[in-house]
Amino acid sequence: MQNQHTECAVPHVVIVGGGFGGLAVARSLRRAPVRITLIDRTNHHLFQPLLYQVATAVLTPGQIAAPIRQVLGRQENAAVIMGEVTGVDTAHREVIVRTHDREDHRIAFDYLVLATGVQHSYFGRDDFAKFAPGLKTMADATDVRNKVLQAFETAEVETNEKHRDELLTFVLVGGGPTGVEMAGAIAELANLTMRRDFRRIDPGRARIVLVEAGPRVLSAFDESLSLKTQERLRRKGVELRLGQPVEHIDEEGVIVGGERIFSRTVIWTAGVTPSPAAEWLGAQADRLGRVRVNGDLSVGRMANVFVIGDVAYYEQNGRPVPGVAPVAIQQGKYVGRVIAARAARGPVALPVFRYNDKGAMAVVGRNYAVMQFRGWKLAGYLAWLVWSGVHVLFLALPNLRISVFLQWIWSYLSKQRGSRLIVVPHKAAAAEPVAAYHAAETQARR
Amino acid sequence: MQNQHTECAVPHVVIVGGGFGGLAVARSLRRAPVRITLIDRTNHHLFQPLLYQVATAVLTPGQIAAPIRQVLGRQENAAVIMGEVTGVDTAHREVIVRTHDREDHRIAFDYLVLATGVQHSYFGRDDFAKFAPGLKTMADATDVRNKVLQAFETAEVETNEKHRDELLTFVLVGGGPTGVEMAGAIAELANLTMRRDFRRIDPGRARIVLVEAGPRVLSAFDESLSLKTQERLRRKGVELRLGQPVEHIDEEGVIVGGERIFSRTVIWTAGVTPSPAAEWLGAQADRLGRVRVNGDLSVGRMANVFVIGDVAYYEQNGRPVPGVAPVAIQQGKYVGRVIAARAARGPVALPVFRYNDKGAMAVVGRNYAVMQFRGWKLAGYLAWLVWSGVHVLFLALPNLRISVFLQWIWSYLSKQRGSRLIVVPHKAAAAEPVAAYHAAETQARR
Repeated sequence: MQNQHTECAVPHVVIVGGGFGGLAVARSLRRAPVRITLIDRTNHHLFQPLLYQVATAVLTPGQIAAPIRQVLGRQENAAVIMGEVTGVDTAHREVIVRTHDREDHRIAFDYLVLATGVQHSYFGRDDFAKFAPGLKTMADATDVRNKVLQAFETAEVETNEKHRDELLTFVLVGGGPTGVEMAGAIAELANLTMRRDFRRIDPGRARIVLVEAGPRVLSAFDESLSLKTQERLRRKGVELRLGQPVEHIDEEGVIVGGERIFSRTVIWTAGVTPSPAAEWLGAQADRLGRVRVNGDLSVGRMANVFVIGDVAYYEQNGRPVPGVAPVAIQQGKYVGRVIAARAARGPVALPVFRYNDKGAMAVVGRNYAVMQFRGWKLAGYLAWLVWSGVHVLFLALPNLRISVFLQWIWSYLSKQRGSRLIVVPHKAAAAEPVAAYHAAETQARR
Repeated sequence: MQNQHTECAVPHVVIVGGGFGGLAVARSLRRAPVRITLIDRTNHHLFQPLLYQVATAVLTPGQIAAPIRQVLGRQENAAVIMGEVTGVDTAHREVIVRTHDREDHRIAFDYLVLATGVQHSYFGRDDFAKFAPGLKTMADATDVRNKVLQAFETAEVETNEKHRDELLTFVLVGGGPTGVEMAGAIAELANLTMRRDFRRIDPGRARIVLVEAGPRVLSAFDESLSLKTQERLRRKGVELRLGQPVEHIDEEGVIVGGERIFSRTVIWTAGVTPSPAAEWLGAQADRLGRVRVNGDLSVGRMANVFVIGDVAYYEQNGRPVPGVAPVAIQQGKYVGRVIAARAARGPVALPVFRYNDKGAMAVVGRNYAVMQFRGWKLAGYLAWLVWSGVHVLFLALPNLRISVFLQWIWSYLSKQRGSRLIVVPHKAAAAEPVAAYHAAETQARR
């Protein structure tokens, strides 16, 4: 590993993160005279916009995850490493990667692209994490799915009425797209999918509460769309608590506006925090911790280091570009062009990055979505069709597109779900590194 | 819960286990004048014959698991409880069930059917379990999948050649159908699916070793089929160690015939042990611990208690019927008929159970299977087509049949797999009962 950068003479591009941004960089460099190493801590590119559908049993994990190796399998100039980046040595132009066997590797780069995204954040209340899982990784999604499905199972055998009500109360913290989408999906799980499946409880009596600290859901959208979304959610039976931050979360539920809502299933979709890219680079950050980038998405005076996607802070027309997939993809493609141009022609300057606004969408259960695209606004069935089409098309592999498309048609017609599985994992035993007995030897080798 | 048996006058049939046997009983009682409660510790019926395909990333968990509630959703006389049976009170005719919130419930029955199956067994060497996971539950399968895929990922970054070889060595302990099928599937994963995906290792150089203590693989099959299977496995590059029991397993690999095989991935498919039904009932067992049942599959003098499937010991023509799905299904249907007849007409006697032999099959990778059906024997492509057809048709839900069918066609053509996911579960946090704060109250209620 150590000598990888001497293997050949073409420049070595290291990309950290296999999300929308990182993958876009790798793909746009497929014909460039460079060698690429993409590093991700998982083995799959996760299609995050549909993660809520895994968490609500509509789709299986495999349907929204593309093995990064498979995506880049035919791209001869790209290698993939599964490992966790723990730091960047900017002086020596090296990235430090910890792999599964707990060994640290140093990988030299000529160009570095950090596309490490964000993780969920409890705004300093990490004690909430235990009671209110977030929804960022596949493990999060299967955890939430276990939790939601298990709540109905336990309610079916619970004899104490108060406890049964707590089990059938679901609280979503955060009124962004994920919170809205989860609320709609849980409502339909209870009212449609599970309608016939229980004998002692009526799943339709489940209480679903969406809590948002701001005055309306989908605050990034035009207000008229927020109002329509709220109306739609209410019609689905979702209870909205707007303008009230969550004050407390514990095993009994949440406290909102001074009132306790008893619930055994609280899901956190309220906040995110950037990964520590700014720290690694010693770079300037905005108040949230995102790396301030130059017009060409490079960082400070490091012309060969780029930061893109959710972890970057970039202003356009005096406003930061939003933390959404189209921004990451466009930035990835742009950085790919910059690196390709420099690798081929030396230090050239391209026009600064400009985000071409692709609008925003959110879905509220079956048959209803809201979307805005520049001046246009759309809510209802047509928007839902557009949402469905766009989301199917943007999956990373053709077989996933077909699989999700067929699954949705079947689910739509049958009102059933594709993956109503509770799988209680073993104690992560198999996932633990088996390197213990090599530890001494490994030390000696360093 | 306590008073459930007084809810109505029709007899209450309690079925423990939602596998092939338990589900067959429930379904065959759909028009009978009884009330059914099916108890399983998971929420899904697992199609075990295809579990190895989940473990080798061909299928997703959702494709071989049918939510038991959904399967029985339209069957009005059936209720489902997710919980673990911990004992049977034969004197009071009650089953003791522990549910997810760690509460014990007593459920009264008029008829009881135990279809609790087997779990894997290390023949008294439980210390092997840590290093050689078995393959019985969905959690087992995703664990093994994580382990196998992770081994290739770690090998790609491993600089020490010896360690790389250990990572690329896979040992299957046990030459039954699961061992044979796993060996073939891992060989094809390495040689076909992952062929283009790595840059530093050649997955095709993976070493796959199948260890069998007896003189041949598939000992339940005709010898000619065993020999053909062995030939086919060897052609796929699988190394066979026959007539040599595994002497030891630890984190460095296995010891076979006095020789150490260094391997980081050892999978156990060698032995099973019945669930403790005999103990619960205080019933006679064979030397393996299976319950000896009467001609009508009832137990000892308990005319209303039946044991079926892998956990039952039943002789026919002087030989025990095998522990396979068709036996469980036929026994389930038979017991359903017995109970229906008695519920409708009082104590009637049916002819004793007779197993109608459906033969046996095993698959050795794509295009090749072996099967025997009474006197007939078949090996090769045609047998593989029959195997595929039978396995698709026996999935419990129509949507799973379509899904697996399409997946197989796509995988066959593309040589790709449906679910190459490594998902490291959180520390089973979400799966833990949240009942801690209710503990005191629960105690008081008992």
